[in-house]
Amino acid sequence: MSSIKVLEGKNITDVPYFKASGIHCGLKKVKKDLCVIYSEKKAVAAATFTKNKVKAAPILLNMKSIENENTQAIVVNSGNANACTGDEGYNDALSMAKVTSEALGLKLEEVIVASTGVIGVPMPMSKIFSGIDMACKSLSYDGGKDAAKAIMTTDTKEKIITVEFNIGSKKATISAMAKGSGMIHPNMGTMLGFLATDVNISKAMLTKALKDSVEDSYNMVSVDGDTSTNDMVVILANGSCENTIIDTEDENYKLFKEALHFVNVEIAKMIAGDGEGATKLIETKIYHAHSLKDAKICAKAVITSSLVKAAFFGADANWGRIICALGYSGADLNVNTINISFTNSIGTIDICKNGGNIDFSEDLAKKILEQEKITVIIDLNDGEYNATAWGCDLTYDYVKINGSYRS
Amino acid sequence: MSSIKVLEGKNITDVPYFKASGIHCGLKKVKKDLCVIYSEKKAVAAATFTKNKVKAAPILLNMKSIENENTQAIVVNSGNANACTGDEGYNDALSMAKVTSEALGLKLEEVIVASTGVIGVPMPMSKIFSGIDMACKSLSYDGGKDAAKAIMTTDTKEKIITVEFNIGSKKATISAMAKGSGMIHPNMGTMLGFLATDVNISKAMLTKALKDSVEDSYNMVSVDGDTSTNDMVVILANGSCENTIIDTEDENYKLFKEALHFVNVEIAKMIAGDGEGATKLIETKIYHAHSLKDAKICAKAVITSSLVKAAFFGADANWGRIICALGYSGADLNVNTINISFTNSIGTIDICKNGGNIDFSEDLAKKILEQEKITVIIDLNDGEYNATAWGCDLTYDYVKINGSYRS
Repeated sequence: MSSIKVLEGKNITDVPYFKASGIHCGLKKVKKDLCVIYSEKKAVAAATFTKNKVKAAPILLNMKSIENENTQAIVVNSGNANACTGDEGYNDALSMAKVTSEALGLKLEEVIVASTGVIGVPMPMSKIFSGIDMACKSLSYDGGKDAAKAIMTTDTKEKIITVEFNIGSKKATISAMAKGSGMIHPNMGTMLGFLATDVNISKAMLTKALKDSVEDSYNMVSVDGDTSTNDMVVILANGSCENTIIDTEDENYKLFKEALHFVNVEIAKMIAGDGEGATKLIETKIYHAHSLKDAKICAKAVITSSLVKAAFFGADANWGRIICALGYSGADLNVNTINISFTNSIGTIDICKNGGNIDFSEDLAKKILEQEKITVIIDLNDGEYNATAWGCDLTYDYVKINGSYRS
Repeated sequence: MSSIKVLEGKNITDVPYFKASGIHCGLKKVKKDLCVIYSEKKAVAAATFTKNKVKAAPILLNMKSIENENTQAIVVNSGNANACTGDEGYNDALSMAKVTSEALGLKLEEVIVASTGVIGVPMPMSKIFSGIDMACKSLSYDGGKDAAKAIMTTDTKEKIITVEFNIGSKKATISAMAKGSGMIHPNMGTMLGFLATDVNISKAMLTKALKDSVEDSYNMVSVDGDTSTNDMVVILANGSCENTIIDTEDENYKLFKEALHFVNVEIAKMIAGDGEGATKLIETKIYHAHSLKDAKICAKAVITSSLVKAAFFGADANWGRIICALGYSGADLNVNTINISFTNSIGTIDICKNGGNIDFSEDLAKKILEQEKITVIIDLNDGEYNATAWGCDLTYDYVKINGSYRS
């Protein structure tokens, strides 16, 4: 067992040899809109990219660059997604990597590029170039928070977590910063996650750990069921912790994987709870499904249903909508064995037993559902597989944010 | 070519030998909540039922009854869905069929049962029994409109269409009544469709015609992506038109199928346009897809996306969200050949060409998008298959209807 310690107030530049900066270059009116994350030491990287067939230009570029053995920098802009921008957009992403690499003395393929914001609009490259120049000059050991701010769009909070854990005799660190499903008017939401660690690990093992963890963290989040063209999660590991290199699935790999997954799940929850217009974080835990696939399908079906999400907004203990979502999910299940409860700090209440109605206190249900965090426990009693998904309620503000007229 | 004529103001009791009634028995506070549709002559029936694994009791009963060669009556209640009610619920559905069959001198298996409303609550059978008694006594040749009212939940309008067409030397009639995705607080929406025709057709051909048509009409409608436990469409054909029986896919079958599909598409559009909280009917037409499956997937992905739906509410010409939905739909497509336009009575405007941005008049786009009906034309330029889907915008009222506190 590892003990994972959350370091309050720490961010990505608290990982040894990582510098960062976040500046304003004019893509947004006032707020910071460009950041650079830089490892002074050589680092291996792993990444996962959107499965959307429509991939933004930086995603297409990164899919090549990530093959490189060394990756030392990430440059990110918010305010323009550089998606659906054709060959010109691809060249712009390439230029962003090139300019950043030159400023930092790196090769082009050692830089990862990310963009989020309006789509289908050419990148204003003169602003971007001067922004990258400024950001590279501003790199510092306390720029982590600025960097986290610069990637935000309609996010209401920065999403940062840093943990410390033991790996052999060494203390290791992982820090993550992310932006969630915010929408830059008039455009689509994007999930971006950037992680840094000082763990010494091979690129192959880092890739495996990230891919496995993403499946059960970010990929189990739904804000509105839409998958952006720009989604990506990337981790850089610069090895400065000096543990014996992790290059097989040994005990140290497990310790690293556990800490990495803890970080990813915490970030996933922050993204779900800060979904557009959201007032509540909804966690759905499926127990005893027929297969792991069925468990995951069920967890996501419940958290994705507009009817379920609207019911949570209204603090309505509507198990009918939950069971309906389970039914149409396509998962293999037995309706007559489904039990459903709600739980959080207020208490726990059973609201459905064996797929049917039971008496419960409406008052207690309402009190539980009025809180900012609610866990829905769904026991399918039909197997041995479990899964968890995270989402948020559907509110007037979601419609307001996404349905307002263009100005 | 047939000529299909819409008979304004006519309803299901304008089909020869069909009687109907709609009454109030106390499931709702004031409004009509129970109806019976009855063919005085023997009739063959075909039906399609929800694919949700959680099926309401009447659906389970109907899946057996529909096998019977003769079907002469449909009994429908609104206000209670008789879903997730276990063995007791199944017995209640059986009792509804039994009591109706006795009142009409039919066999139990000659009656189809439908319910819509609150789920997980036992049926108040004494109200139902006296309601069925009253409804059977009230059957008349002008009860069609009352029947259409009695199946409504949060629908704002009755959904009725009647058409006349020639079949050989005979004039034939098809009439449909339906309820859409309304929600009875605190529950799930249900799509119910009931059709009557005087066409003389075999049960096998009627079944084939209905199943084929439903695939491209009701199954291409999405209000909120949720599939109810109670959805069903049923058609009774009593043969009183006295055309030569249709028992193969001959010319008369094609004429009937064409009229049936016209009716189903019109009802599908009424359901989409009257979705909960909807202010607009959105029609998505996909052209030149790689396969029919890809065309359908694309059409439904666009109409199901919360982001696209919210953009239509805001009259926002947001092609980025449309292309994003196409991209994550899972369909096989080529982003670089996609063209998108909006069209309706105001005009037509191209908003995306070859998957990218083009200049267009924001003023004209806004005027088009402010109308109550908008068609989105998406040309994938990647094959020869087309599909159409219907949906509605996502509005404050959707959240209000589905997210309000239980009283």
